Amino acid sequence: MIDSIVKHVDAARLEQRLAKLYELGHEPGHRGAMRLAFSAADRRGRDYVLDLMRQAGISPRIDQVGNLIGVLRGSKPKAASLILGSHLDTVPQGGKFDGALGVLGGLEVVEAMQAAGYEPAHPIEVIAFSNEEKARFTTGFGGSLAMVCGIKPGDLEGVVDGRGVTLVEAMKSCGLDPELVSKARRPSGFCRAYLELHVEQGGRMLKSGEQVGVVTAIVGISRAHLTFKGRANHAGTTMMEDRSDALWAAAEMVRKVREAAVASQGGLVGTVGILRVLPGAANVVPGEASLTIELRSADEALKSQTLDDLLTQAGSLAERWHLELTSSVNRPGGSVPLDQTVQSTIAESAQELGIPHRRIHSWAGHDASVFAPVAPTGMLFVPSQAGISHSPDEYTHQEDVLAGVRVLAATVARLDRLYAGGTVAD
Amino acid sequence: MIDSIVKHVDAARLEQRLAKLYELGHEPGHRGAMRLAFSAADRRGRDYVLDLMRQAGISPRIDQVGNLIGVLRGSKPKAASLILGSHLDTVPQGGKFDGALGVLGGLEVVEAMQAAGYEPAHPIEVIAFSNEEKARFTTGFGGSLAMVCGIKPGDLEGVVDGRGVTLVEAMKSCGLDPELVSKARRPSGFCRAYLELHVEQGGRMLKSGEQVGVVTAIVGISRAHLTFKGRANHAGTTMMEDRSDALWAAAEMVRKVREAAVASQGGLVGTVGILRVLPGAANVVPGEASLTIELRSADEALKSQTLDDLLTQAGSLAERWHLELTSSVNRPGGSVPLDQTVQSTIAESAQELGIPHRRIHSWAGHDASVFAPVAPTGMLFVPSQAGISHSPDEYTHQEDVLAGVRVLAATVARLDRLYAGGTVAD
Repeated sequence: MIDSIVKHVDAARLEQRLAKLYELGHEPGHRGAMRLAFSAADRRGRDYVLDLMRQAGISPRIDQVGNLIGVLRGSKPKAASLILGSHLDTVPQGGKFDGALGVLGGLEVVEAMQAAGYEPAHPIEVIAFSNEEKARFTTGFGGSLAMVCGIKPGDLEGVVDGRGVTLVEAMKSCGLDPELVSKARRPSGFCRAYLELHVEQGGRMLKSGEQVGVVTAIVGISRAHLTFKGRANHAGTTMMEDRSDALWAAAEMVRKVREAAVASQGGLVGTVGILRVLPGAANVVPGEASLTIELRSADEALKSQTLDDLLTQAGSLAERWHLELTSSVNRPGGSVPLDQTVQSTIAESAQELGIPHRRIHSWAGHDASVFAPVAPTGMLFVPSQAGISHSPDEYTHQEDVLAGVRVLAATVARLDRLYAGGTVAD
Repeated sequence: MIDSIVKHVDAARLEQRLAKLYELGHEPGHRGAMRLAFSAADRRGRDYVLDLMRQAGISPRIDQVGNLIGVLRGSKPKAASLILGSHLDTVPQGGKFDGALGVLGGLEVVEAMQAAGYEPAHPIEVIAFSNEEKARFTTGFGGSLAMVCGIKPGDLEGVVDGRGVTLVEAMKSCGLDPELVSKARRPSGFCRAYLELHVEQGGRMLKSGEQVGVVTAIVGISRAHLTFKGRANHAGTTMMEDRSDALWAAAEMVRKVREAAVASQGGLVGTVGILRVLPGAANVVPGEASLTIELRSADEALKSQTLDDLLTQAGSLAERWHLELTSSVNRPGGSVPLDQTVQSTIAESAQELGIPHRRIHSWAGHDASVFAPVAPTGMLFVPSQAGISHSPDEYTHQEDVLAGVRVLAATVARLDRLYAGGTVAD
């Protein structure tokens, strides 16, 4: 039966849908997909997928925060659901696959099951979560969080996009009632298992040549914001030995972050993405320089130790050049290990299908992070050509897309049987 | 006679005038002097000094670009003038001494000569040049340039301050006719010698303990603007070895500029005053980073060689991380050597008065740079406490101010005799 489901995965249909969705996301004057959360392009994309779900007969509905949910009924309608989720919103000038693949791939699995005449035990839900990218409403809620943990109308207050449009206004323009957002939370135990198919967005799989990545963990993120304050001064008259140049220390930190990440040999990545200098004139010694340090690792101890070391080094630099150092640290997300059983099931499914696979960390955050604490959760990666994502140049070969969806389909069917108390051979 | 002139230098009067001028420069909500060129505070300061000149009987006039000129008649009225110049405009929140000391110190010399009954051979002019700091109209003319080289009304076009006020409007508000600016140029040979007393603005004299600096040269300035372009990318998924992080190279350049300047052991100073990163998000690998490099040195060959080396190193960094490098270089001012005879005369004057002095470069630009190519030009420095300038904290001890003005007075008298064909002992 699993073989039959897998055979009914229609790569051409999926490719066509990905292309259509991408096309609907275009906006004049921009390249790529512009499906920023709750925008007109986002609505066009969601309406398109809603329609596909209707045609597939999986009774799509939209919840109070804009999550789009389609359900294939199972033979045990009161059982918790197997959820195939991802998102449809994109970053500005985003790509064709990020998020879209997980949603349309999930739909493909459901349609393949229908075509194969497979009746699952559990309800199988395909969900497109709203506002995953947080590219437009950076401080807004994620739709998956609203579903799993719940949010309150007050959480929407003060959230605006770069043009001053409030999240409340944007949600209303999509027909949502912001007063009802707390109702998007579903009762505990609603999810039996969560699976997300996604493009890798990096170059790790390309290097090793596998078609499917079995994600072991979603790496944790730590961010520090450092400000060095020295003395702005005349760039001519101030002798080198009299300078308290805040940029000297900030620039050394860029090197130290790079060196620490390189030295970890793949254990962590480190980025200084923001560096600002004040007063910022060619002929004035910088009196203030601030920077962000972002570290990501699946190894919390390594990440924590590295950040501590970096902050100590920042302190030494401040002392060396008589600078005042202030720093704040936050950890937007700890490392999230994914479920071992789900990992094994994905790997076995790939094995059975003869699809080369490997274990891999996810170095980006995903809706799966929200589900991992409450349900067995797994992710499948397919390779991103040139490691490019969040770009119109994002590309995954059709054969890799097909491999990913086939493994997803087999995994869902196996988990459906496994959790129903049967075995895969049933 | 020189002794008598020097004895008539009135330190208390000068201190009082510096304090009054500083007070007139205050604006609500700001510290220090706010005499930005052609502003209300600048006008208040200039009106005050104009009045002092009137009281001194030196027939002050204002030329077509706002330079304020008072003249003590000499016995040879057709002789070229000895000019004691500096400026009255300040940077925002500027100090009490920068510029003001040269103008009020020059006036003090003239009044001391009058009090001593000294009739100079040459006319002695005290000039406050307009818009020296270029803090408000950064691309506007300097009053000294307009006097020495001439400017055209067209040079004022498109020059605006940070609030959108045009230079033309600002000049009109000071009663000037911008159509007439070319008339500020004076006939060649108008200046027999130029002298400027100024605060050092750095910490070099403090370290050696002298009261007067005999300036040997005004250092030259070279500026380079570098832009590294790499690939903006996901700060999680992009492996360290796949990154083309533009900030990596820019940060290394900050270190290299610092190291090159320190290695010169005082031969040059180097500053990265501007560093900008794009797109500038904590979770995005910087795709672009631009920076300025400013080098100052009296040694043009050293400066030139150092800048070439730095640009070569930038090229290597770009190659190392697969970045695209673009750079542009400009040299806003070459090194300007000051007149040997004037230097010797300043040194002899200090020697005679028992005032400790040393030869020193000027690491900041001054109106003297404009005069050096057309007339024997000299500068005298007095120490800046803590090396601070362009700040309300700028401070020079009264005894150092007195020493500077006394040496200036003696130097003017000596040069007056020397150029009149006599000797100092006349």
